[in-house]
Amino acid sequence: MGQTITEKIFSEHVGHSVYAGEIIRSNIDMVIGNDITTPISISAFNLSGATKLANPDGFSIVLDHFIPAKDIASANQARISRDFAKKHNLKNFFDEKDMGIEHALLPEKGLVVPGDVIIGADSHTCTHGALGAFSTGMGSTDLAFAMITGGNWFKVPESIKVVLSGKPGKYTTGKDIILEIIRMIGVDGALYRTLEFTGSTIEHLTMDDRFSMCNMAIEAGAKSGIVAYDDVTKEFLSDKNLAREPRIHYSDDDASYVQVLEIDVANLDPVIAYPFLPSNGHSVSQAQKDHIKIDQAFIGSCTNGRLSDLKVAAEILKGKRVHPDVRLIVTPGTQMILREANKLGYIDIIVDAGGVVSNPTCGACLGGYMGILGDNEVAISTTNRNFVGRMGSRSSKVYLANSAVAAISAIEGYITDPR
Amino acid sequence: MGQTITEKIFSEHVGHSVYAGEIIRSNIDMVIGNDITTPISISAFNLSGATKLANPDGFSIVLDHFIPAKDIASANQARISRDFAKKHNLKNFFDEKDMGIEHALLPEKGLVVPGDVIIGADSHTCTHGALGAFSTGMGSTDLAFAMITGGNWFKVPESIKVVLSGKPGKYTTGKDIILEIIRMIGVDGALYRTLEFTGSTIEHLTMDDRFSMCNMAIEAGAKSGIVAYDDVTKEFLSDKNLAREPRIHYSDDDASYVQVLEIDVANLDPVIAYPFLPSNGHSVSQAQKDHIKIDQAFIGSCTNGRLSDLKVAAEILKGKRVHPDVRLIVTPGTQMILREANKLGYIDIIVDAGGVVSNPTCGACLGGYMGILGDNEVAISTTNRNFVGRMGSRSSKVYLANSAVAAISAIEGYITDPR
Repeated sequence: MGQTITEKIFSEHVGHSVYAGEIIRSNIDMVIGNDITTPISISAFNLSGATKLANPDGFSIVLDHFIPAKDIASANQARISRDFAKKHNLKNFFDEKDMGIEHALLPEKGLVVPGDVIIGADSHTCTHGALGAFSTGMGSTDLAFAMITGGNWFKVPESIKVVLSGKPGKYTTGKDIILEIIRMIGVDGALYRTLEFTGSTIEHLTMDDRFSMCNMAIEAGAKSGIVAYDDVTKEFLSDKNLAREPRIHYSDDDASYVQVLEIDVANLDPVIAYPFLPSNGHSVSQAQKDHIKIDQAFIGSCTNGRLSDLKVAAEILKGKRVHPDVRLIVTPGTQMILREANKLGYIDIIVDAGGVVSNPTCGACLGGYMGILGDNEVAISTTNRNFVGRMGSRSSKVYLANSAVAAISAIEGYITDPR
Repeated sequence: MGQTITEKIFSEHVGHSVYAGEIIRSNIDMVIGNDITTPISISAFNLSGATKLANPDGFSIVLDHFIPAKDIASANQARISRDFAKKHNLKNFFDEKDMGIEHALLPEKGLVVPGDVIIGADSHTCTHGALGAFSTGMGSTDLAFAMITGGNWFKVPESIKVVLSGKPGKYTTGKDIILEIIRMIGVDGALYRTLEFTGSTIEHLTMDDRFSMCNMAIEAGAKSGIVAYDDVTKEFLSDKNLAREPRIHYSDDDASYVQVLEIDVANLDPVIAYPFLPSNGHSVSQAQKDHIKIDQAFIGSCTNGRLSDLKVAAEILKGKRVHPDVRLIVTPGTQMILREANKLGYIDIIVDAGGVVSNPTCGACLGGYMGILGDNEVAISTTNRNFVGRMGSRSSKVYLANSAVAAISAIEGYITDPR
């Protein structure tokens, strides 16, 4: 009986063939915690009486949400992770010295690998599926269980096959594809399922596009998103010192899917998700007609804080100036992205245009710090959630978009089509 | 009867000779507000029934303390200044589009000029005295009075003549000189007086040194600090589009001083101000003997966030790595400083060494955001105040130092002599 890539990954991990719906116990290749969620995991770890991590090199802590500390509570919270990392001599501990948003940083470091089973106490852990891995968000106590035992229980998810066809236009990105999917199926359209992205479009999509798509799988309620290994994956991994050998899997032709979703990407406009749901998608041309004035444009986050995001922003901002009524905040995903962007002149261009470039952090995206919205303020944002109050005041409004739309809108003062 | 430079500045402003102790009403050349203090001034301005600023081009608002907004309250607070600036078509309004710490930004923009009378609703407004101006901090309602009338009441301050002699050693900076002065006279040693910096050392001091010295005059209780115009000032101003013609004054030989303070700078070690007062100075060699472990090194603020600070930090950090137990946070004073530092490669060096480079902001210095200290944490910091809880938790400790000491200490993990 044919298997999906997700079923194959779990089959390899448990040592026999497993299928969607089965409850299994799988070992885990990488467990990820951040500054907000890890302290709860540590507390549960300690409560259990455990003294040693089952797999120290398979545990990463990334301080990214409220670091450098935005307040005393954040500093104390971070201290718990710092002390634990030191006590356990953790190799994969990332704080201010090597800052990055966890879902941008770990792929960069070669710590997430095709064929892996990955869990993280962060909903956007599904990002790493872009590398052909099973990767999902879990709670902090689930994390503790994995820290103690090296594995955890899973129900092997059913899969939705997303068949993408056609080459996307210049300003239509992975972000637009996933926003379109969420528009089509809704924020609960993929509950506990894997969104498996396939089709002729895939070869045209960069790793950055794929990370954006898998990143927002959770916004359709999906357990995970996944893209099978190909030449683009291979090229991305080629300069990395990988933590494990890749285990490459492809779905069988006769694998079972609960749903097949076909999308013609060639004719897909950039998509704007209006408040207050990621599923509330409209084409950018509609948004431009609606003449939506903005107070803030934000480019960053685990969804769109990668080099290609800074590149397109710099291309659009070059020689221009941010609108007087708008503030533009650009948050590179990692220090390495910042370094690369700097080498290519993007940081200078953004600053000269009147943008603020912050340190890598989750900051503004979750209403943490570094660009919080006040009452009635409106933002165009490359982030992943536009729920009520997500980026600040409950009366603020967030429109989700790709980085090109955010950059051109920062110049024009209202949501604008970059084409 | 001879006059001090401060008396001359006020005499020119009131149109007749005035002397220390006299109560006068002077017009004001530049009134400065920030995101924390301006809303209170605006409220008082509105309460007065005023509708127009007496001198719109002589009013600057700089959003620097909690911007990009660290939380909803900061965002709402900033909005008050944004709206006021827009309503009054304020030329000198600086937010995310041209970010900078007010006392680093305004000299850069040519908005503070030799001979000026300047007030700001920020205690470190005394910084601008480095340009041969009278500049002092006042309350927000005093600011409102100046916004409405264009002037304010002053008691012309008595002056303390600080005679600095000798050429400072490589790692002895303006910061060390002012810390030494505060050590000598105490945090109330210059109450309502002007610290007038003179002597053979001055020609060896860069504008950055002088800004640091005048910046911390308030930490000795001084009303202002001042350095007379010379070739270094001239050079600094030469590439700037000045808001006004400089009015250059020098103290008369027979001017009256309440005190003369002589300091041999040639033999002055770098000074570390131990917790919890800026007057608690010790030599860096003593500090090194005391083996003070640190959790955080901070380089930035209106005291030491200038290009020369980033330069010395980069020189020390080049090819090195921040100590595993330490986080290094570097906050350039303005976007222009960031741009210049970037051009010179400093930003790359700092990031490669494991430092975080933030956007320009007052942030960490006042316990605002961007590097707050948790319980029992210890910091070496280039900022200006080490009071209990200044940078975070009440149980944290801040040691004040120059940027070279902060950089070398970040590498070594404890407070270290850079020499």
